[in-house]
Amino acid sequence: MRVALVGFGAVGRGFADAVLGGAVDVDVVLVADSSSVAVDNDGLDLESVKERKEKQGVVGEGEDVQGALEDADYDVLVEASPTTLGDAQPAFGYMVTAMENGAHVVTSNKGPVAMRYGELMEAADEAGVEVRMEGTVGGAIPTINTVRESLAGDEVTSARGILNGTCNFILTRMLEEGLTYEHVLGEAQDMGIAEADPTFDVEGIDTALKCVILSNVLFEGERTLDDVDVTGITEVTPDSLRLARESGHVVKLVGEVSEESLSVAPRLVPEGHALDVSGTLNVVSFEADLAGEVTVTGHGAGSSETASALVSDVAAIARKE
Amino acid sequence: MRVALVGFGAVGRGFADAVLGGAVDVDVVLVADSSSVAVDNDGLDLESVKERKEKQGVVGEGEDVQGALEDADYDVLVEASPTTLGDAQPAFGYMVTAMENGAHVVTSNKGPVAMRYGELMEAADEAGVEVRMEGTVGGAIPTINTVRESLAGDEVTSARGILNGTCNFILTRMLEEGLTYEHVLGEAQDMGIAEADPTFDVEGIDTALKCVILSNVLFEGERTLDDVDVTGITEVTPDSLRLARESGHVVKLVGEVSEESLSVAPRLVPEGHALDVSGTLNVVSFEADLAGEVTVTGHGAGSSETASALVSDVAAIARKE
Repeated sequence: MRVALVGFGAVGRGFADAVLGGAVDVDVVLVADSSSVAVDNDGLDLESVKERKEKQGVVGEGEDVQGALEDADYDVLVEASPTTLGDAQPAFGYMVTAMENGAHVVTSNKGPVAMRYGELMEAADEAGVEVRMEGTVGGAIPTINTVRESLAGDEVTSARGILNGTCNFILTRMLEEGLTYEHVLGEAQDMGIAEADPTFDVEGIDTALKCVILSNVLFEGERTLDDVDVTGITEVTPDSLRLARESGHVVKLVGEVSEESLSVAPRLVPEGHALDVSGTLNVVSFEADLAGEVTVTGHGAGSSETASALVSDVAAIARKE
Repeated sequence: MRVALVGFGAVGRGFADAVLGGAVDVDVVLVADSSSVAVDNDGLDLESVKERKEKQGVVGEGEDVQGALEDADYDVLVEASPTTLGDAQPAFGYMVTAMENGAHVVTSNKGPVAMRYGELMEAADEAGVEVRMEGTVGGAIPTINTVRESLAGDEVTSARGILNGTCNFILTRMLEEGLTYEHVLGEAQDMGIAEADPTFDVEGIDTALKCVILSNVLFEGERTLDDVDVTGITEVTPDSLRLARESGHVVKLVGEVSEESLSVAPRLVPEGHALDVSGTLNVVSFEADLAGEVTVTGHGAGSSETASALVSDVAAIARKE
């Protein structure tokens, strides 16, 4: 199978490393980052692409990513560029181009599937291809595919989860050390766990996007970020965490998804409960009519972890080809 | 798709109820229990079969289950009869017959896949069909399919889990109430959580079989029950549970699977650890090279729960047909 890989940051390089490590047997014929592109229909040498990116800051000689996606010959687009909101461009356009070119889409980019899910599914239907998105929610944890495949016969009525490792790390440290939000945020930034501009994570937007995606998969709806009632963790105090603990609870940034509503907010969770995971771990609990509650826990971010999800989606497509 | 259902106890009836509830779109053309069989190539009325079983103790007029499996016309055998050890008969024979008849096999029966995995896979290869076994390990929790599909690109190096709800219920109650093993076992028997003869569960044999199955899936080996070092929970005392708790631990019957060894024994687990689940819950943690640790938690037994796993396997086959 031939793969076009768009996005060559941590996740894209993680995917390239997984291919180099033999995780899945594909030829990568196109690699693009935000401003450069390399194409070889006989298969690129990924080690050279990595080296060029490291030394010269580009992946190849080309500059027209869109044109390359129109012309190249590939079976699957792996879209691993950073999430953009609003019209979710340029990723949305890349995906549509790939589908018009007859290719399936596998993505870790939350933008297109959270902001323009309906249009994307319509384009996939018309082209007769699949859009798979395991890497968008919960990193290495099987979430989307747990719903679609492992619970294929179940009606999944709701999902609750901790879907942002940065927030969970901050809340865990604040509780353990009795430190303020500002102090721990600084610490997390020093450790590379929080971004220099942490808004996207700490205001709950990242969690909200993941809730939108889960909702669209569970209820075949077309919800977007506007449908989520969002509160972040910036107002959480060490005192409130201590009070919660005195009553046997921890405070977690919980995303809740049901057919009626979507919300993200700091919630009390009983200590020892399935959602009581620490540090940067993520967790999702699904409520299903036959299976009851099914919970999946693991690493919600990271280069090789997100690559694991991308590879499993590519492998799922390969099994059907 | 046409299904033959063998086994009409709690799990088989759970599957029938799931089909009646619309969980998966199939025609059930054959239903058998241990001594009777009903066949209708146009599709059986499952409500009538249930009623006959309840009132007359049989599912149909026929008595020759083996002969019916040879003659009937079906795409998938759902084998949901009780686990037998040794040569794993009659289920093993039924499966081979179905495969020779061109049908895929979906099973919740641990016997054939734990005792005769190699022979079974060989028969499947020869017939060009699939054997799926999600229901054999962890009931409603996706375990086998997490390894085979969600972690398709990963190398899964080990698994650790709590795979027997009866043992976990007994250990949880002993710890919470300070009661003896004998006392809680009696309680569990009264509640229907433990069998009248609890040996299979409390001696660790059930957990060991599940470890063998996980091992065979993970390492494509042909291990059997003889390869597992097994200690059950009958010697666990309330004192040992209290001592463990004083050091921040709980005692759990843990199954451990790696390429080197298989073991089942009461182990210390840190309180709040992913494996620290209470009551009848089951849990499995996989260690994978790309994804890191992935943990799945849920209901390990029960009629609709095990049916959920059978249905997901049938649906997976249907997606490929």
